[in-house]
Amino acid sequence: MGDLEIRDATADDLPAIVAMLADDPLGAQRESLDDLTPYRAALERLDADPNQHLVVAVREGHVVGTLQLTTIPGLSHQGATRALIEAVRIHSDERGGGLGSQLIEWAVDTARRLGCRFVQLTSDKSRTDAHRFYARLGFTASHEGFKLRL
Amino acid sequence: MGDLEIRDATADDLPAIVAMLADDPLGAQRESLDDLTPYRAALERLDADPNQHLVVAVREGHVVGTLQLTTIPGLSHQGATRALIEAVRIHSDERGGGLGSQLIEWAVDTARRLGCRFVQLTSDKSRTDAHRFYARLGFTASHEGFKLRL
Repeated sequence: MGDLEIRDATADDLPAIVAMLADDPLGAQRESLDDLTPYRAALERLDADPNQHLVVAVREGHVVGTLQLTTIPGLSHQGATRALIEAVRIHSDERGGGLGSQLIEWAVDTARRLGCRFVQLTSDKSRTDAHRFYARLGFTASHEGFKLRL
Repeated sequence: MGDLEIRDATADDLPAIVAMLADDPLGAQRESLDDLTPYRAALERLDADPNQHLVVAVREGHVVGTLQLTTIPGLSHQGATRALIEAVRIHSDERGGGLGSQLIEWAVDTARRLGCRFVQLTSDKSRTDAHRFYARLGFTASHEGFKLRL
């Protein structure tokens, strides 16, 4: 396989990112490839926020992975800044090939470089393979993750 | 009990907020009231970020509760912005009196007003009382919450 580049996402990457978000048992029910307008507006919000890092993994000119890293200042843990990982997706052609680990390691390294004291993420309870994956990377399933739709 | 005000936290509120962070089975191990310098630096980071809303609940001039609400733009769920709740603390004098519900309802209302499509939070698995509390407020424990210390 060719070299991997992890870089900031641009508007040109949106179709490939949204296709990965939708190519997923949970994402298939909630994404829409028909109209990218809401995704473009969201990318503008992400670009305007210096605490957001939406990246793509690119191999041989193709977007093959994505994740969003957010840094969040806070008072607890003696004023610790934390990093949040959201929206991790790997292209179906690359699953099981180590790209997920490379992306998470990029996020952890970036969080450390940005002065974060811990990294956190939540994963739907149905994603049991993902839970084993995060445990292998050193994450601890120490918390219950609650959601409320508005 | 007197009227309750929920307002943005200021530097003058820091001693009371940090005391609440520390008056907790988990917080007691990780906070330090001896030197507020790291907390002051964190408050400056919070104030500089328009997506952060650190609030205190005040009754009769006393800080009796706090939470941090963060809004996070994103691509998934058709470009949904989400809200994250962190660092919820209620003064020991007020626990069990409904203040926790009022604070969370404030956060949910604020998230809705800011255009968020859902609210999320994680709670340490040892905090079983808190889990029942969030379930009563309509939250679903749908996710595993993973953490990695750096």
